[in-house]
Amino acid sequence: MRTITIKPAAITHNLNQVKALAPKSNVLAMVKANAYGHGVAAVLPALQQADGIGVATLREALEARQLGWDKTIGLIEGAFTIDEWQQAIEHDISCVIHHAPQLAWALEQIPAADSATRVVWIKYNTGMNRLGFNEQTLVPAAKSLHDAGYQLILTTHFANADDRSHPLNAMQIQRFNDMLSILRETISHDIKGSLCNSAGIVNFPEHHHDWVRPGIMLYGSAPVIDQSAHELNLQPAMEFGAQIIALQTVSAGDAIGYGSRWTAEQDTKTALVSIGYGDGYPRVVNEDAYVTVIDTNNESYRCAVIGRVAMDMIVIDVSAVPGSSALNSKVILWGDAPHVDEVAVHAGTISYELLCRLSLRPQRL
Amino acid sequence: MRTITIKPAAITHNLNQVKALAPKSNVLAMVKANAYGHGVAAVLPALQQADGIGVATLREALEARQLGWDKTIGLIEGAFTIDEWQQAIEHDISCVIHHAPQLAWALEQIPAADSATRVVWIKYNTGMNRLGFNEQTLVPAAKSLHDAGYQLILTTHFANADDRSHPLNAMQIQRFNDMLSILRETISHDIKGSLCNSAGIVNFPEHHHDWVRPGIMLYGSAPVIDQSAHELNLQPAMEFGAQIIALQTVSAGDAIGYGSRWTAEQDTKTALVSIGYGDGYPRVVNEDAYVTVIDTNNESYRCAVIGRVAMDMIVIDVSAVPGSSALNSKVILWGDAPHVDEVAVHAGTISYELLCRLSLRPQRL
Repeated sequence: MRTITIKPAAITHNLNQVKALAPKSNVLAMVKANAYGHGVAAVLPALQQADGIGVATLREALEARQLGWDKTIGLIEGAFTIDEWQQAIEHDISCVIHHAPQLAWALEQIPAADSATRVVWIKYNTGMNRLGFNEQTLVPAAKSLHDAGYQLILTTHFANADDRSHPLNAMQIQRFNDMLSILRETISHDIKGSLCNSAGIVNFPEHHHDWVRPGIMLYGSAPVIDQSAHELNLQPAMEFGAQIIALQTVSAGDAIGYGSRWTAEQDTKTALVSIGYGDGYPRVVNEDAYVTVIDTNNESYRCAVIGRVAMDMIVIDVSAVPGSSALNSKVILWGDAPHVDEVAVHAGTISYELLCRLSLRPQRL
Repeated sequence: MRTITIKPAAITHNLNQVKALAPKSNVLAMVKANAYGHGVAAVLPALQQADGIGVATLREALEARQLGWDKTIGLIEGAFTIDEWQQAIEHDISCVIHHAPQLAWALEQIPAADSATRVVWIKYNTGMNRLGFNEQTLVPAAKSLHDAGYQLILTTHFANADDRSHPLNAMQIQRFNDMLSILRETISHDIKGSLCNSAGIVNFPEHHHDWVRPGIMLYGSAPVIDQSAHELNLQPAMEFGAQIIALQTVSAGDAIGYGSRWTAEQDTKTALVSIGYGDGYPRVVNEDAYVTVIDTNNESYRCAVIGRVAMDMIVIDVSAVPGSSALNSKVILWGDAPHVDEVAVHAGTISYELLCRLSLRPQRL
């Protein structure tokens, strides 16, 4: 058994944390990339109190509509073609407009006055330098959209919001606030603003504006570098589990696994766990990597991952688990402990990647 | 569009390379982990000339049966419970037996004489130290299985076969060959042997025995450290593609993406590509990482990945692509060039992991 268990109550709890931090803002809950690997069908019911959801592709938007989501859907990279723009209109999707071709499509095909697609998120490049209009092109783009009847939300994206002290944050905030003032003064006082992702919600409470866009924090991971998920009162929404399928004692001097990269310093009780990178557990982890074993007596033990992670199995040190109670035990790769944020540190990445890169193989419960 | 295109003809070609290297051996083609991420349904038709397939879980075995595979299926970690052993019998699955509980189940429930489950792969631990009987326990286990009517294949797994000169190889080969001789002399001359994975097939042609078990080489990646896939005449079976969705010129001094980790030394034409770690492209790649852009004039260009890979997009340097022909261009993340083996080097891992950890999001063609 390789299992992914989703905890909708944790997601609702985390959404409530967002609302407590940003009580005056609408919430666009990010469910792109299959809800950060959690499965959008499993997650949507837990997000009923969000004002909208955010997705990265039209397919993701249509999937959410098919699942019955009838509130705002924000397509955060916008339509990729005029055909996608037409489909967005058909399904009442609100699009980001970040470059000239998208602007042209919007001006060519204007949705009905009561369509959700009449709300557009106009993207301003304040320093991420991936997408968005610049200081010169944004105002005329916004003007033409407003004149065509669109309701506008000015949006941008932080490059370093996880690190409150990074100097780019103040610059991005300043540019965003200045531009929003200009738009409101020169085009319409009704223009809304949306600046903050999860990290911004935590680090820049004075700049929440009309819409916040939480992503990773909904799933229970810490979005900032100086506070843990626990300190932020976020609950992990996924438990990734497997099972011990065999026990063995290796002798001092024996090496384990591919590359023979771990050698027993003494006779060591090891267990084989039915999980590997073929399931989405990262192949490269450092010597701090561990799992929690819940043995057949329902006691929990912290057990080190030893040797190279393989496609279908890992080996762990079960010296601490008494007797033969380890066989058939449940193994937690991430969940309450280790938290996926810890595993990310062991793997030299961030929890977002671990969650997204799960494969089809584990059973989803 | 984020796409995964599978090339069945490449898989058949690679299988034929295996057969040319190991003409006297039966071939157990490994399709575990959803055929190394390629999709088992897409791969099985290309493996019709294999003698059997290998899987890691009973679910994978049953899926292959449902897809109509009627030849040998080898369950390479065996049954995890007696219930799984019974299901293996029901569906004519051949199991590995690597520890005492599996031996007990096999002796308790003996399949019919004409059942494929009467063939068991008895696993000998020759130095991988993950699973298998040891020198003392293997002979009596084999004897009891033989006496109960099972046909035996002695099997083991290399820890370092990718590196021909690693001293453990000679030791594992010696132990395996010695044990096979003992079993044939003391139990039955009909006992078969299976030693070689892809790396062993290439590096140890004199030790192919009765069954070889190719995995990664079927999918077109190099299984050894000193020869490339091209040198081994293997063809990549997957093309992982995306599309350029926006163009931008960043100014000298501008930083791109999360963490602002890439700064333009001069004004640079960049493109946004609709792919990210939410699709399975690795988040951490070094500065050698590149993609191939096939522009709207059907010309190919090698373009560097710049800045941090994000969940839904990457930025590439399209300075070399003339005019505005880059917009809407096809982008190859891996395929013919870069080969997935190259991307694995850029990401500090092996191609196996990249292939297995693809997410649900890309469309499979």
